[in-house]
Amino acid sequence: MEKLRAGILGATGMVGQKYIALLKDHPYFEVSYLVASPSSAGKPYREAVAGRWLLGTDIPSRVAELMVHTVDELPHAQKECDFVLACLDTKIAEEWEEKYAAAGLPVVSTASTHRHTSDVPMVIPEVNPEHLDIIPIQKKNHGWDKGFIAVKPNCSIQSYTAPLYALHKKFQLRSAIVTTMQAVSGAGHPGVASLDIIDNVIPYISGEEEKSEREPKKIFGRVEGNAITYDESFNISAHCNRVPTLDGHLATVSFTCETKPTKKEIVELWESFSGIPQELQLPFAPLRPIIYREEVDRPQTRLDRDADKAMAVTVGRLREDPILQWKFVGLSHNTVRGAAGGGILIAELLKAKGYL
Amino acid sequence: MEKLRAGILGATGMVGQKYIALLKDHPYFEVSYLVASPSSAGKPYREAVAGRWLLGTDIPSRVAELMVHTVDELPHAQKECDFVLACLDTKIAEEWEEKYAAAGLPVVSTASTHRHTSDVPMVIPEVNPEHLDIIPIQKKNHGWDKGFIAVKPNCSIQSYTAPLYALHKKFQLRSAIVTTMQAVSGAGHPGVASLDIIDNVIPYISGEEEKSEREPKKIFGRVEGNAITYDESFNISAHCNRVPTLDGHLATVSFTCETKPTKKEIVELWESFSGIPQELQLPFAPLRPIIYREEVDRPQTRLDRDADKAMAVTVGRLREDPILQWKFVGLSHNTVRGAAGGGILIAELLKAKGYL
Amino acid sequence: MEKLRAGILGATGMVGQKYIALLKDHPYFEVSYLVASPSSAGKPYREAVAGRWLLGTDIPSRVAELMVHTVDELPHAQKECDFVLACLDTKIAEEWEEKYAAAGLPVVSTASTHRHTSDVPMVIPEVNPEHLDIIPIQKKNHGWDKGFIAVKPNCSIQSYTAPLYALHKKFQLRSAIVTTMQAVSGAGHPGVASLDIIDNVIPYISGEEEKSEREPKKIFGRVEGNAITYDESFNISAHCNRVPTLDGHLATVSFTCETKPTKKEIVELWESFSGIPQELQLPFAPLRPIIYREEVDRPQTRLDRDADKAMAVTVGRLREDPILQWKFVGLSHNTVRGAAGGGILIAELLKAKGYL
Amino acid sequence: MEKLRAGILGATGMVGQKYIALLKDHPYFEVSYLVASPSSAGKPYREAVAGRWLLGTDIPSRVAELMVHTVDELPHAQKECDFVLACLDTKIAEEWEEKYAAAGLPVVSTASTHRHTSDVPMVIPEVNPEHLDIIPIQKKNHGWDKGFIAVKPNCSIQSYTAPLYALHKKFQLRSAIVTTMQAVSGAGHPGVASLDIIDNVIPYISGEEEKSEREPKKIFGRVEGNAITYDESFNISAHCNRVPTLDGHLATVSFTCETKPTKKEIVELWESFSGIPQELQLPFAPLRPIIYREEVDRPQTRLDRDADKAMAVTVGRLREDPILQWKFVGLSHNTVRGAAGGGILIAELLKAKGYL
Repeated sequence: MEKLRAGILGATGMVGQKYIALLKDHPYFEVSYLVASPSSAGKPYREAVAGRWLLGTDIPSRVAELMVHTVDELPHAQKECDFVLACLDTKIAEEWEEKYAAAGLPVVSTASTHRHTSDVPMVIPEVNPEHLDIIPIQKKNHGWDKGFIAVKPNCSIQSYTAPLYALHKKFQLRSAIVTTMQAVSGAGHPGVASLDIIDNVIPYISGEEEKSEREPKKIFGRVEGNAITYDESFNISAHCNRVPTLDGHLATVSFTCETKPTKKEIVELWESFSGIPQELQLPFAPLRPIIYREEVDRPQTRLDRDADKAMAVTVGRLREDPILQWKFVGLSHNTVRGAAGGGILIAELLKAKGYL
Repeated sequence: MEKLRAGILGATGMVGQKYIALLKDHPYFEVSYLVASPSSAGKPYREAVAGRWLLGTDIPSRVAELMVHTVDELPHAQKECDFVLACLDTKIAEEWEEKYAAAGLPVVSTASTHRHTSDVPMVIPEVNPEHLDIIPIQKKNHGWDKGFIAVKPNCSIQSYTAPLYALHKKFQLRSAIVTTMQAVSGAGHPGVASLDIIDNVIPYISGEEEKSEREPKKIFGRVEGNAITYDESFNISAHCNRVPTLDGHLATVSFTCETKPTKKEIVELWESFSGIPQELQLPFAPLRPIIYREEVDRPQTRLDRDADKAMAVTVGRLREDPILQWKFVGLSHNTVRGAAGGGILIAELLKAKGYL
Repeated sequence: MEKLRAGILGATGMVGQKYIALLKDHPYFEVSYLVASPSSAGKPYREAVAGRWLLGTDIPSRVAELMVHTVDELPHAQKECDFVLACLDTKIAEEWEEKYAAAGLPVVSTASTHRHTSDVPMVIPEVNPEHLDIIPIQKKNHGWDKGFIAVKPNCSIQSYTAPLYALHKKFQLRSAIVTTMQAVSGAGHPGVASLDIIDNVIPYISGEEEKSEREPKKIFGRVEGNAITYDESFNISAHCNRVPTLDGHLATVSFTCETKPTKKEIVELWESFSGIPQELQLPFAPLRPIIYREEVDRPQTRLDRDADKAMAVTVGRLREDPILQWKFVGLSHNTVRGAAGGGILIAELLKAKGYL
Repeated sequence: MEKLRAGILGATGMVGQKYIALLKDHPYFEVSYLVASPSSAGKPYREAVAGRWLLGTDIPSRVAELMVHTVDELPHAQKECDFVLACLDTKIAEEWEEKYAAAGLPVVSTASTHRHTSDVPMVIPEVNPEHLDIIPIQKKNHGWDKGFIAVKPNCSIQSYTAPLYALHKKFQLRSAIVTTMQAVSGAGHPGVASLDIIDNVIPYISGEEEKSEREPKKIFGRVEGNAITYDESFNISAHCNRVPTLDGHLATVSFTCETKPTKKEIVELWESFSGIPQELQLPFAPLRPIIYREEVDRPQTRLDRDADKAMAVTVGRLREDPILQWKFVGLSHNTVRGAAGGGILIAELLKAKGYL
């Protein structure tokens, strides 16, 4: 099978690097094209990223020699990509993602720009794959032929959204109070200054609580007519904190459903939770999207973030809550499931569904 | 004024060391007697604690030369102490605290042993100083003459208990959901292994959530007849986490009151909150027990833990909660306000009230 | 091929766990027998290690069900092992390693007990594989039939010993001044208290400098007659420090040789360095035992410790020294190359040489 | 006594903030004037530094209301300052320090710009106070009336320079091999990215080794004619590393003198080491510039960095070196003794000597 050619927009950033590392030897996709800032353009990637390559593994050798382009070299992109994985800064995403789509290139984006655009699907492939049905409408709205935009939600919601969704379908979630303890890689590189976070907790991340509270409402929503409508039947309250960990966003969650489930029912729902990616055995799909651990002190950030290629959400400590119904701890890897890995899984789903 | 002579039970442990450091030059008290394990006994303190002194400051020279005793040398203690500050392991506390009280020595304890004994006051001096009124009853119950036991609550509750109490008096607290991010010093020394906590969050601390949920109910309770009755008019749900910080327990809190206060009312209550320790200008009393910070990203563990001699609780980020009424962040220094400093403030209050 | 059955002595400790994890799916060896302290004995391993399993990966399922034995159940060990990988505490190693050898079981040990026993080989397989020639003599000295003891040197020396040896053979090392920055896992678990090492450097590790200075002299020595003689033609001065990293011992090294090599000669020696393990393509042998990196800021502990299955030593920053001849930075993974991985490589070499 | 009015050039940076915090209640100096980048200019300091104030203590209230100026408003500076404490970025320092001196303002600088300018004194007040004698020559060279430049050496050298100087005077230092383990605050703010340094050691700091090797040669030099000549009678070899600590640069040092001192002689020299600042009892002078600790595991970064107002250098672990003569560990606080505190001590000395 001929591999699809993927362009990486924002290739020298942390998520861009992670995309490049994760796509090494991918069965469907190969990195064919790289976009970064003007200061990097015109250089081979190896040189553009010199001194800024953040990963322990080496740069895949084929990608290392690719020439870096600027974001405005659209004709090049059209010729050398079948689709693009975009992890541009918000400002640049705002300007360019639609232009790439208009130029016939499907865009899978990690930027927040279009997360609440009504005809853009924001997808966790195990939760709301049917949101991709909005794509033909999006294309029609814009008069686009092959291009479109699909986006990945924020990394902070990954540790609780799938676990709550598994319950929501059957018991109707009403409320969840969430406190996140987020790793520094969530802020990219250079991101959080070491002087600010060593021996410290910063109980604030700009914009993060709003995202953490609102994005699940769209994800749990439905494609209705020309738009994705939000599920307003529940509320989430988020406290977002930065802690001195490298990778992995951990969340404590207290929640209430319309009908109170039993502990057994919850654990069964989590352990049996599965979706289209599992059914289709997509390469980046974890065997089980939610892993429930029985140990009293798990999940732990460092021990569990890499579960099943860092694509599984690990939950534990399910116990009664004296105020809401139940409480638990959730964890997901923010730069894999919550960023590049999540983006790849969306691309795999798009391919399986014939959109790529 | 002659200083009162304080014995430290558990003098080589982390809290014992903190007591010794904080009492250097104390206007009311002087450390006169030290108790530690048999392996330390019979040695001057300097030698007993060699290689285990955890603080940057040197051992106060007078204390360094004091001979260390075992816990069972009660006649010595009686002769050389006016009261004792006890920070013994739970097991040993269980066996010995009552014997010291019976021997005529007032005991101020940080152990959890007697926190829920009905005639033992568990005191945050700014919150429930009137619980000391149980002491005569306690003495009578046991037939004790001068001795008695008073205890300090758990370090995990200090960051939210005073702020919630300030509201409770006027608006009646109904529920609070709390997530703590606790420093490693809370586990004493050696306590948490570095291999377990660097680049990690451990979402579990044995027994901590129960303490965090239940202790405020006694503290908000009343002396009625021969016992302190619990205030069962509210519930707390606690998620307790260990994070890689050295000192300072930070908590995110969502809460609801019987009557919903305005933001202005809450801030005013916090800023004007004051108690007997402030009125009496006790040496360890912070000027204001609760400091409210306006900055969007405060309190932070490292920046705010030392506020006002590390005895003030710092709160911030008060904002509406989509599920309960309001949410905020609280912080207190766990080994000062939450342990040795809190114990000293109780002793100062006891002295002011004529119990020492 | 039938796999050889390996017993792990000290199976619940950190190195024991690492042995178990690394031997999963090993082509030559399978873990067949486990020894731990009396409190663990009689339980399946899963239960014995519950709450103490330190690794992110799960316990290999077959090992999880193995019953744990005490060290004194020698007849069991004889029946169920072909050899043992021993990582016992020094005291216990002193008492038991010889008994296992006497019972006919080859012992590959990480303990320091026999490192300077004159008929016990202390081996880095790429450096001094010929020291295994002492084994027949050792057996004869003790009247042992099949059993013997072979040991792995200290983890602190791995980052500089192979790089210096590569030079020594050709240019005769005369002196090296080494400063190590060692990870907390080097002290085992619980090991270093988090309260001692967060935001700190401890410039002392008991016994470590002596080992770091003396062990290379035996490793560079020769089998002569009935003993391994030391190479006293050079001296090492070691400063050993504990720093807040999880894994990976990094060292800065200044050195002088009898004949001053050129930079080109040194890099060539390092890059071409290879040994019997590479020749025999042993499963745990890295492709190249020494990796030289050109970047100005490498090796870095976190980025390079896992190089080639964490079995390669990474060096960099080779530059002239104003006092000795040259200086560089070396790094090796202390619990893999420096402990369990190094032990497995010795066992592989022993098997290839017919000793197992 | 009227206080001298100090301007802070670079007032919003980390060192600028530290100057402001340390000068609160200083007996000789008061902060009267602030310079920062154009984006901060025209605002009260409180506002200019909002969200970037790095210290746990609050901004001194008087300084908080001072208006921030740009570096080019020289007439203002002339009117409102008696001297300036400059901690500008190198580029800006290059352009402006001489202009301030020319405008009649004495400049005490932490920038590296003029460290090797032959008529500019680079001073550790206890080591080479007599270098201030070059100031009249410097003034004459430039035709300056009251203004001049004096500089502080690099923070990386403070932990070993005074201890080696104490020996040099009597035994003539010949060589020292130094490995530093430097805190992240040495890189300013934002400085080192947390993603780069958590669980890591970076064995490279741009330009730092050159400074660490060369600056002591000027400091140990002499004013001869119109220039300060370097002491080339010894060499230093430096390995500079960044480690995950907040404050405090620790160094391991091996050294050789012309005449080998005894351990007793070295310790006596260190313990008796004292200088003009001690003699004059300058406010920021530590009681003893060098503190020797006997404990086997001291100095430690976190425990000893604050010794005597963070102005003392703490040394320990003096022991024989198998290659050079002796080895030891040194520690100094990089943002106090190594930056703002060191600058203030120079200013105090300048005042005492009549230069301010």
